[in-house]
Amino acid sequence: MIKVGILGASGLTGKELIKILLKHSETKIVFATSRRFAGKSISYVFPEFKSLTDLKFISPSESYKFNDIDLIFLCLPHTESMDYVKKFVDKNIKVIDLSADFRIKNSALYKLWYNKIHKYKNLLKESVYGLPEIFKEEIKKAKIVANPGCYATSILLGIFPILNHGQVEDIIVDAKTGISGAGAIPTFENQYINVNENIIPYKIGRKHRHIGEIEDVIFNKYKKKINIIFTPQITSLDRGILSVIYIKLKKWIELEKLKKFYLDFYKNEPFVRIVDDVNLHQVQYTNFCDIAIDGVREKKIAIVMTAIDNLVKGASGQAIQNMNILSGLKETEGLI
Amino acid sequence: MIKVGILGASGLTGKELIKILLKHSETKIVFATSRRFAGKSISYVFPEFKSLTDLKFISPSESYKFNDIDLIFLCLPHTESMDYVKKFVDKNIKVIDLSADFRIKNSALYKLWYNKIHKYKNLLKESVYGLPEIFKEEIKKAKIVANPGCYATSILLGIFPILNHGQVEDIIVDAKTGISGAGAIPTFENQYINVNENIIPYKIGRKHRHIGEIEDVIFNKYKKKINIIFTPQITSLDRGILSVIYIKLKKWIELEKLKKFYLDFYKNEPFVRIVDDVNLHQVQYTNFCDIAIDGVREKKIAIVMTAIDNLVKGASGQAIQNMNILSGLKETEGLI
Amino acid sequence: MIKVGILGASGLTGKELIKILLKHSETKIVFATSRRFAGKSISYVFPEFKSLTDLKFISPSESYKFNDIDLIFLCLPHTESMDYVKKFVDKNIKVIDLSADFRIKNSALYKLWYNKIHKYKNLLKESVYGLPEIFKEEIKKAKIVANPGCYATSILLGIFPILNHGQVEDIIVDAKTGISGAGAIPTFENQYINVNENIIPYKIGRKHRHIGEIEDVIFNKYKKKINIIFTPQITSLDRGILSVIYIKLKKWIELEKLKKFYLDFYKNEPFVRIVDDVNLHQVQYTNFCDIAIDGVREKKIAIVMTAIDNLVKGASGQAIQNMNILSGLKETEGLI
Amino acid sequence: MIKVGILGASGLTGKELIKILLKHSETKIVFATSRRFAGKSISYVFPEFKSLTDLKFISPSESYKFNDIDLIFLCLPHTESMDYVKKFVDKNIKVIDLSADFRIKNSALYKLWYNKIHKYKNLLKESVYGLPEIFKEEIKKAKIVANPGCYATSILLGIFPILNHGQVEDIIVDAKTGISGAGAIPTFENQYINVNENIIPYKIGRKHRHIGEIEDVIFNKYKKKINIIFTPQITSLDRGILSVIYIKLKKWIELEKLKKFYLDFYKNEPFVRIVDDVNLHQVQYTNFCDIAIDGVREKKIAIVMTAIDNLVKGASGQAIQNMNILSGLKETEGLI
Repeated sequence: MIKVGILGASGLTGKELIKILLKHSETKIVFATSRRFAGKSISYVFPEFKSLTDLKFISPSESYKFNDIDLIFLCLPHTESMDYVKKFVDKNIKVIDLSADFRIKNSALYKLWYNKIHKYKNLLKESVYGLPEIFKEEIKKAKIVANPGCYATSILLGIFPILNHGQVEDIIVDAKTGISGAGAIPTFENQYINVNENIIPYKIGRKHRHIGEIEDVIFNKYKKKINIIFTPQITSLDRGILSVIYIKLKKWIELEKLKKFYLDFYKNEPFVRIVDDVNLHQVQYTNFCDIAIDGVREKKIAIVMTAIDNLVKGASGQAIQNMNILSGLKETEGLI
Repeated sequence: MIKVGILGASGLTGKELIKILLKHSETKIVFATSRRFAGKSISYVFPEFKSLTDLKFISPSESYKFNDIDLIFLCLPHTESMDYVKKFVDKNIKVIDLSADFRIKNSALYKLWYNKIHKYKNLLKESVYGLPEIFKEEIKKAKIVANPGCYATSILLGIFPILNHGQVEDIIVDAKTGISGAGAIPTFENQYINVNENIIPYKIGRKHRHIGEIEDVIFNKYKKKINIIFTPQITSLDRGILSVIYIKLKKWIELEKLKKFYLDFYKNEPFVRIVDDVNLHQVQYTNFCDIAIDGVREKKIAIVMTAIDNLVKGASGQAIQNMNILSGLKETEGLI
Repeated sequence: MIKVGILGASGLTGKELIKILLKHSETKIVFATSRRFAGKSISYVFPEFKSLTDLKFISPSESYKFNDIDLIFLCLPHTESMDYVKKFVDKNIKVIDLSADFRIKNSALYKLWYNKIHKYKNLLKESVYGLPEIFKEEIKKAKIVANPGCYATSILLGIFPILNHGQVEDIIVDAKTGISGAGAIPTFENQYINVNENIIPYKIGRKHRHIGEIEDVIFNKYKKKINIIFTPQITSLDRGILSVIYIKLKKWIELEKLKKFYLDFYKNEPFVRIVDDVNLHQVQYTNFCDIAIDGVREKKIAIVMTAIDNLVKGASGQAIQNMNILSGLKETEGLI
Repeated sequence: MIKVGILGASGLTGKELIKILLKHSETKIVFATSRRFAGKSISYVFPEFKSLTDLKFISPSESYKFNDIDLIFLCLPHTESMDYVKKFVDKNIKVIDLSADFRIKNSALYKLWYNKIHKYKNLLKESVYGLPEIFKEEIKKAKIVANPGCYATSILLGIFPILNHGQVEDIIVDAKTGISGAGAIPTFENQYINVNENIIPYKIGRKHRHIGEIEDVIFNKYKKKINIIFTPQITSLDRGILSVIYIKLKKWIELEKLKKFYLDFYKNEPFVRIVDDVNLHQVQYTNFCDIAIDGVREKKIAIVMTAIDNLVKGASGQAIQNMNILSGLKETEGLI
């Protein structure tokens, strides 16, 4: 039985982690923290968990007294998370960090996108980017897993197989997310009246932070500098990211061949499915990433479409997948 | 041309008022106030009005310098509105108050439901409850029109014709509202993630403030004390209130006869339609109240269903209807 | 390992059954039939099942060649299902029938509501109404379980504890359902454009078929004739039924006492939770029925609110619960 | 007073036409046809029109007896509409055809996309493509106006100003539509359960018919052959098209300059607004097309985003705009 703690468990990703862990046969939640709800039972705050757990939220500071845990999930704000990572690593506890703090290896780039100097450059070197389909071997031995961003997951899984074959000129990503991507704290941006029956593009072109993460991961893997164009859009639904990725190739690859690249690349991956068509219903509430491939020969433009659930494969499901790998459990445990 | 001002114009009812007034052929918006957005153009704050108006929001305090206006709409919070009413009445400007401050004539009852002592009991006597289908003659001569609450409108229009015939024992109202009823300021209650794909009953039984308003209006009209049961519910849609009203009768009235009561009662009313079936699509974005009548003879229970748009007939459309009546314009001007 | 078959597996309840059974650790789906999709793989028809099952749909007639199965789920249209029930019972295979054909013991009443003479009155006597919270002992030994209707489940669980204490005068149910209740075949009634952002009452008063089922079950249990009033309503969401039940009592029961009745009545039931507040998020995608209790003393009206997922506790989850009970498995297996 | 008829008035565009015409001060609907509902009153079929019109639907064949009308709107299926166009033109009645039959001047191209030989090539020459922002002068004198497709409107308005300046290499359109684009007849594709909380790409790359229309209009105007890439997507909302258009330029144009092109190009157009940000709320239920401009210099890719209401500017509103122009009325009459 793996003993886990969750810091920041009352946000959307924390809640999703609790939900998955309660069905996971090999883990025990030892504690879950919440600044807002410390002292209240989890099932009081989230009535859907009534009769499923008796645990109470504790305050983050209380978390330090638990020494006998195997692994900690950090669901804390970017730039705040790194101090907690340091503390738990020092206690020899494995960390899966759902914030962005250890996703970008290049600390100058981290500074650029998150406007904060990274305090733990040594730890940054040791951390592993937690996209299991690409870095599984490294994850097995990692002390710190930087769990990928939701958009980044949906985009990287869509472009890795083709990057592998070179010939890429431009990458344009038109991505649509559900509103759970906008977090649990009420804002004008995530208010029903503003987002229902709406589509809202934001941070057009090269403004969204996940660009830093995506390009750094590609650079570390392939030593290639890629400048992607990325238009995120809020759509009126709860969960899911559908990314349509337009890839201008220097040299055309026939679609059958291209599809085979993808099938081969992911042939041992339980959570990536190469499909004829994507839509969000196929992946909501699951840890799958579905990928469909199309394109226009006369324009040498491949069109790769990916679908994930932003809270599962895009966050907490992937964190559990990383935990399973890290802990020597079956990769799909608790997730299928 | 009627010159109007709007206080509190950046909330949902204020915005809806602007929208209707911009299409109204007999009015001119002289000013619109907003604490949050004073100095900004209306079309900057609400891009849907771009190219339709050049007006800028002013601060509430600036509103006093406009003396040459005919009528003011107050879209201010309950308990704050009454001071503004007083100031404009003193300047001999007609007031349509969309807050609850002048809806309840009985000041003890007002204190009970709004937890505030009413400061202007004399004005309370002069004010008229702005439900035109019942108080049209009084509205014509009013200085202050207390524009009804959204639920209250949907319920009172559904029960007046039957109250008129006596024989009512119990009234149970099961009402469902869209989320725009929860206002423009972000809260957990109006956040997409919490209300989408959900139905949320709240203030069950006799806890919602509109009960005070409904029962006071009925008492003033019929000298009857009625205790209604009322279960409001938030449903995952933008606009509309659908009330199903179960009326236990002392003596059964055949449905054909009952339907005729309703047809007769509203025969000269342009905005009430007696229909076979109600649903929200019939009334959204309109000032109509649709009413359908059914019942179960062996139980002596009549079932009256009403549908309105909470922001139009339940708020700003009704305010315009009141303005039209008050100003001697065609009642439907700007509304059909 | 329990070997099961599903007839009519390509509708919404069939699909939900497949989904739950694929996660159930003690069952194996031997076959699944579909008239429309016979010969096609389940994962082709429902891409969400890709990589989870290799099974193909077969035609209903092919189902007869499978003799070595333990239990069959019938997800067939009302009035068609009974012939299949007969055939499988004759083969000594346990049947869980999700149609209405064996829910009403009184065949005259069945004729009244379903406009068809029941052909198997002997089997009707042997069948058990599959509401485990009421009929668990009978279900354990049943050959045929008549899986309850979705509305009926949400209503019966809400009223049984109070009926148990007598004193009931009127029962008024105002129930709101998600659109999945309207089935998988496209109609004007389940088309997006007609139901999105809408609430649609239908079959007002005493017109919905589940009334027959509810009253027959109550009569069989308590020998009481009750005439409920029931207003079903379609609301713009996928899943869930929220029923607000207004119960006029002959003699008032204090709310604390009433709540205790409910807590006691369901104290050993893993899927009923007595809660402070209900909403659909608490129960969607689960087999729970959440119940909240309120009321208005001066009117002697108790207000019981229940929430279920219509496809899980209202259909396929309850069918699995019945299978678990019938097969001597843990009642919650595959469901929590 | 302009006397108009509508053929095919019970579909979504017909209904929207009726709605706008009932508020239009200079027109009278003389007849409206419907195969399905001939003989029934419009307000019976569409209860939202109750008390607004007493007209009954007639059958299409009855339409020929009305000779004293000025203009006819055809809301008929593609390939069926052309015969009706011919008949009304022969009677000297102006025609606004909302089908695709007269949108593509090149009859070979029409054959390619609609799989039917065009029977009236002479009429094709006389017809005018009804995008008023581009062809206003031609529309004024037209006998037949081919009202543009919804996607085509959203795309052409987004690319005309930049095409005007040449230098375009690739055009990639990622367009999201509401479900009303899928018509009034129930299908799996427009059923709530399949599209709610979903995003569904379809006809990826170069498969959607509007490509034919878009490229033909561009060719006729600029004598340029452009091959656009176009990925339409169904999203879970009623109304609106949001197109994000990625335009690879041979030579970069600074964004300020580019924005000025757009402002200049549309400076006299009442229904095109150049805005900072687009979203669907700004344009729903209006005839506006909002356009925002962005881009990435280092990639020489301009990003043009357009938003329209598919049933208004994308269909019936634009048809009224065309009628106004054709009839010498104020262009915005009935639309603002």
